[in-house]
Amino acid sequence: MHEVAVVGASGYAGALCAHLVRRHPSLDLTAVTARSEAGRRHDELYPRYGIELAMEEFDADRVAERAQAALVAYPHGAAAKAVKQLRERGLKVVDLSADFRLDQRSYEQWYRDHGAPELIAEAVYGLTELHRDAVREAELVAAPGCYPTAALLALAPLREVAEDAVVDAKSGVSGAGREPKQATHFVSVTENVNPYAVDGHRHQAELDRELPGMRITFIPHLLPIDQGLLASCYATAKRPLDGPAVAELFEAAYAGEPFVELTDTPPGTGEVRETNRCRIHATVDGETGRVLVFAAIDNLWKGAAGQAVQDLNLMLGLPETEGLL
Amino acid sequence: MHEVAVVGASGYAGALCAHLVRRHPSLDLTAVTARSEAGRRHDELYPRYGIELAMEEFDADRVAERAQAALVAYPHGAAAKAVKQLRERGLKVVDLSADFRLDQRSYEQWYRDHGAPELIAEAVYGLTELHRDAVREAELVAAPGCYPTAALLALAPLREVAEDAVVDAKSGVSGAGREPKQATHFVSVTENVNPYAVDGHRHQAELDRELPGMRITFIPHLLPIDQGLLASCYATAKRPLDGPAVAELFEAAYAGEPFVELTDTPPGTGEVRETNRCRIHATVDGETGRVLVFAAIDNLWKGAAGQAVQDLNLMLGLPETEGLL
Amino acid sequence: MHEVAVVGASGYAGALCAHLVRRHPSLDLTAVTARSEAGRRHDELYPRYGIELAMEEFDADRVAERAQAALVAYPHGAAAKAVKQLRERGLKVVDLSADFRLDQRSYEQWYRDHGAPELIAEAVYGLTELHRDAVREAELVAAPGCYPTAALLALAPLREVAEDAVVDAKSGVSGAGREPKQATHFVSVTENVNPYAVDGHRHQAELDRELPGMRITFIPHLLPIDQGLLASCYATAKRPLDGPAVAELFEAAYAGEPFVELTDTPPGTGEVRETNRCRIHATVDGETGRVLVFAAIDNLWKGAAGQAVQDLNLMLGLPETEGLL
Amino acid sequence: MHEVAVVGASGYAGALCAHLVRRHPSLDLTAVTARSEAGRRHDELYPRYGIELAMEEFDADRVAERAQAALVAYPHGAAAKAVKQLRERGLKVVDLSADFRLDQRSYEQWYRDHGAPELIAEAVYGLTELHRDAVREAELVAAPGCYPTAALLALAPLREVAEDAVVDAKSGVSGAGREPKQATHFVSVTENVNPYAVDGHRHQAELDRELPGMRITFIPHLLPIDQGLLASCYATAKRPLDGPAVAELFEAAYAGEPFVELTDTPPGTGEVRETNRCRIHATVDGETGRVLVFAAIDNLWKGAAGQAVQDLNLMLGLPETEGLL
Repeated sequence: MHEVAVVGASGYAGALCAHLVRRHPSLDLTAVTARSEAGRRHDELYPRYGIELAMEEFDADRVAERAQAALVAYPHGAAAKAVKQLRERGLKVVDLSADFRLDQRSYEQWYRDHGAPELIAEAVYGLTELHRDAVREAELVAAPGCYPTAALLALAPLREVAEDAVVDAKSGVSGAGREPKQATHFVSVTENVNPYAVDGHRHQAELDRELPGMRITFIPHLLPIDQGLLASCYATAKRPLDGPAVAELFEAAYAGEPFVELTDTPPGTGEVRETNRCRIHATVDGETGRVLVFAAIDNLWKGAAGQAVQDLNLMLGLPETEGLL
Repeated sequence: MHEVAVVGASGYAGALCAHLVRRHPSLDLTAVTARSEAGRRHDELYPRYGIELAMEEFDADRVAERAQAALVAYPHGAAAKAVKQLRERGLKVVDLSADFRLDQRSYEQWYRDHGAPELIAEAVYGLTELHRDAVREAELVAAPGCYPTAALLALAPLREVAEDAVVDAKSGVSGAGREPKQATHFVSVTENVNPYAVDGHRHQAELDRELPGMRITFIPHLLPIDQGLLASCYATAKRPLDGPAVAELFEAAYAGEPFVELTDTPPGTGEVRETNRCRIHATVDGETGRVLVFAAIDNLWKGAAGQAVQDLNLMLGLPETEGLL
Repeated sequence: MHEVAVVGASGYAGALCAHLVRRHPSLDLTAVTARSEAGRRHDELYPRYGIELAMEEFDADRVAERAQAALVAYPHGAAAKAVKQLRERGLKVVDLSADFRLDQRSYEQWYRDHGAPELIAEAVYGLTELHRDAVREAELVAAPGCYPTAALLALAPLREVAEDAVVDAKSGVSGAGREPKQATHFVSVTENVNPYAVDGHRHQAELDRELPGMRITFIPHLLPIDQGLLASCYATAKRPLDGPAVAELFEAAYAGEPFVELTDTPPGTGEVRETNRCRIHATVDGETGRVLVFAAIDNLWKGAAGQAVQDLNLMLGLPETEGLL
Repeated sequence: MHEVAVVGASGYAGALCAHLVRRHPSLDLTAVTARSEAGRRHDELYPRYGIELAMEEFDADRVAERAQAALVAYPHGAAAKAVKQLRERGLKVVDLSADFRLDQRSYEQWYRDHGAPELIAEAVYGLTELHRDAVREAELVAAPGCYPTAALLALAPLREVAEDAVVDAKSGVSGAGREPKQATHFVSVTENVNPYAVDGHRHQAELDRELPGMRITFIPHLLPIDQGLLASCYATAKRPLDGPAVAELFEAAYAGEPFVELTDTPPGTGEVRETNRCRIHATVDGETGRVLVFAAIDNLWKGAAGQAVQDLNLMLGLPETEGLL
């Protein structure tokens, strides 16, 4: 059994991290921390998960006494410092924030001053399907955001052949975090669908880094669902491609992948709810020759906590799918 | 045309008041005020209603210059002072808060110190179906809360014959107000239904006042809907009553009522969405003799803004249904 | 007062037609017909609208005795015959089906044999903002579908400057009709978003007809909302365009339009719920030069019944916005 | 490993049975059958569960070759015959229908002619918390309906002390089954809440049987949620009871129960979503002395498939909670 702490377990992604660790046959959840909710029992906030541990104030020494690995689910900016302290004490870390996803310059352009720039170089981008070998060797993994996860899994097989893509992404509200805001009020969300960040979304930096040479327009939309994320991608190929050629690219890219499923019809997010799967449908628009790719994930699972556990499995030498089926 | 101001037009009920006044053939919306949102145009917050007026800080003199009547949709406690200033300047007022619904002692037990106790005596409880004549003569009307509106319309015809009732009430989230809270976060509400205030809800005081002698257990529930309120009422009659006797009581009570509809099957809240109607089904449980009454309203219409306009119509000598069909 | 019949008043769009006609100050709703639900009172199916008329079997003579105009809301294929009979009796008709939207060849490619091809030539495509003068003179108007309405209002101002566009459209479930299907079961829809018809959607034919020369990929998605439709459009300009140039095109196109609103931020469907408005935000993606246009409508109002009444207002010489504000 | 078949795996409850059996560490899912969907792979209908087995036509011999136990999730009426054939072949059976919940007379009053009356006597009512020892010995278990599960867990501790109760129950739409109907159309359900079967619901017979001497009014309501069921119960005690006395009754009844949780505040259905738990809050209304009990379950888990697996665990001598945490 590997002892694992979840740092920042009061948010939606962190709470699910705690749940997935706790029910994992080879992991032992030894500590949960939280900032504003410290002192309360976890199952007061999340009765569904039934975790009776009290959430503690974060103290790196106390965490290091009880855990060899940590999943850090702090907000962007707050994560870097905690990660640094945990790494100094030798813990393997999967960080769910943006703090180690980008190079320093990109990070500071989209977010803020970086709290631990010296660690950026050692961080591996934790999209397993694209960086499995590096994740296996990593001590620090930056789990990708939910939007990039879906968009990258949709577009990576087209890396060599597409020059341009529109990503029209649609996400459930849990992706916006647990803090109450006007935009996440039930009355604002229900019976509504809303594009946002149309002047530039910081997730775009991850797309550009992983898909060099592809010009991407990325537009997120907020949907009246709790969990779920769909990326509808419209790519222009450098040279005309037909349906079978596209199918071949995707089959080659994802043969043997345990969590990627290629489907005959476009997937809905309901098909992957509360699973770590990404379901993808790729086809060609006969009229325009455009390549259409639809990728559905659960934003809290494959887009956050599930993916973090998938990363951790690899880092600890466990079967990649353990605890995730 | 009667000039009308809406004081507190940035909340859900106040915004709908403004909309209903603006589209009313005999009313002229001359001013909208708001506290935190003053300075913004109303249609920035509520594009659906398309009201291009800027929301002003409340100033009783400036309101009185432009209006002969006001609908006040401030929170409990804040309303009393504004109402007092408007009444001093001679405006007819419908107040949507609890501030003038109860006697001073009940009010201060459930709410807080009263800001204008000298006005309580002149206030008429604005449930038109029960107090039409008094509303017609009133200068100050206290519009009932959404829960009491449905519960009282359901139970008033049983006033003489029932000694006891359970009111299991279910409300949409707009009833909880526009301020973002954990409990109104989309993720908290969707795929959930939650009883609350089971140790005593302040709306009970209104029920007890209007239904003296009936012992009432009132339990509210929050539903994943935007607008709508259902009161499921389970009453014990003093003497056995059969279905036809109950039907007769309801028909007698509501004959000719323009906004009350008696139905053959239990009503859903969808049937009254965005209307000022209350649909009621009353029947008797053959096994136990209990009288069952189900009353559905739109909490923002008949439960708040629609009712306030219905009151105002009467106070101004206009047809009761004008602007509400 | 103009006497108007609604043919096919049991479906969602037809029922709203009946409601809009009934509350219209210059129209008189004299008859409602339905196929499977004939004999039932309209308010049994739609209590919200409170229309006490019984729905009749369709009989052109009986309709013609009582109405000078008709809104026909039959399904594709069934409409043509009814429209023909009404036209033969001299009624002005707005048809909400696809039967008169396309030329015979396109229609028969996407739908079926045409039931009244001789009438196609006289039919005017009822997107008022693009064909106002023709609608004014028309005796037969084919109201556009909900998807084309939003997409065309979004893209028409780019007609001369864009060569290519992706339309990622998202619609509420009422657009799929009232008949229960697996795909419209609550459990199938909630907590889900689903692309469909990715191999070609028949609404594309309307887009191609109205936007000749623009290569369009149109992909619809089903959302867990009742009413509302958002078209997110991604257009490639023939020549680089900057934001101000795009803004100018839209301002020129829609100056004075009563139902089109240009917004500073991308609109949500909630902003137009139960209104006849189309809210549009157009901007340029600085990185790629792509023109982004987001158009939100209520699919049952501006996408169906509201638009039909807007057409009828023009055909009857009434103010275009009458009964729709 | 125990080999288990799921008979009727295409409905919501049957599909979840298949999922729970498949992921169960001591059970092996060897066959899934379906009536109308026979021939299709299970994961075509339920991609979330990822079960690659083809659904077969039911054939008792073929099932008996591969399984020693079966969960039967056929509709009422259809189940009896299948159960009989499986029992004749020696399989242990948990039946999720109503067919073996009641005595023949009650069954035939509420449902229809019984297809295998000779088996009724051997069937054990599978509400584990009330009948654990009998379930352990049973060869045939009739799993309770979702409404009775919540209501009985709420009221059983009051069996000796209460003479009368109102059960106002609220259920998600999955409880109404997978077949599309007008009442389960998304547009009918969303933004609505609807009481139904107010003239008598067949689940009442189960309540009366298990709570002899308590007069119960049971009223179900349909909510716009997918999974979840709340029973709000209002009981009248024979003698006045205070809060501590009630608390003691519940603590005594449920001490050590793995799936029943007593809570300090009224539970929402979201707290038990996709779990086998029942969360219960019991209190006394100080004004009226009424005992208030709120019980929340997931109708597909503790109300159907989860409970069936809990029963099966006991019947097979496995730990009661295995595969359900």
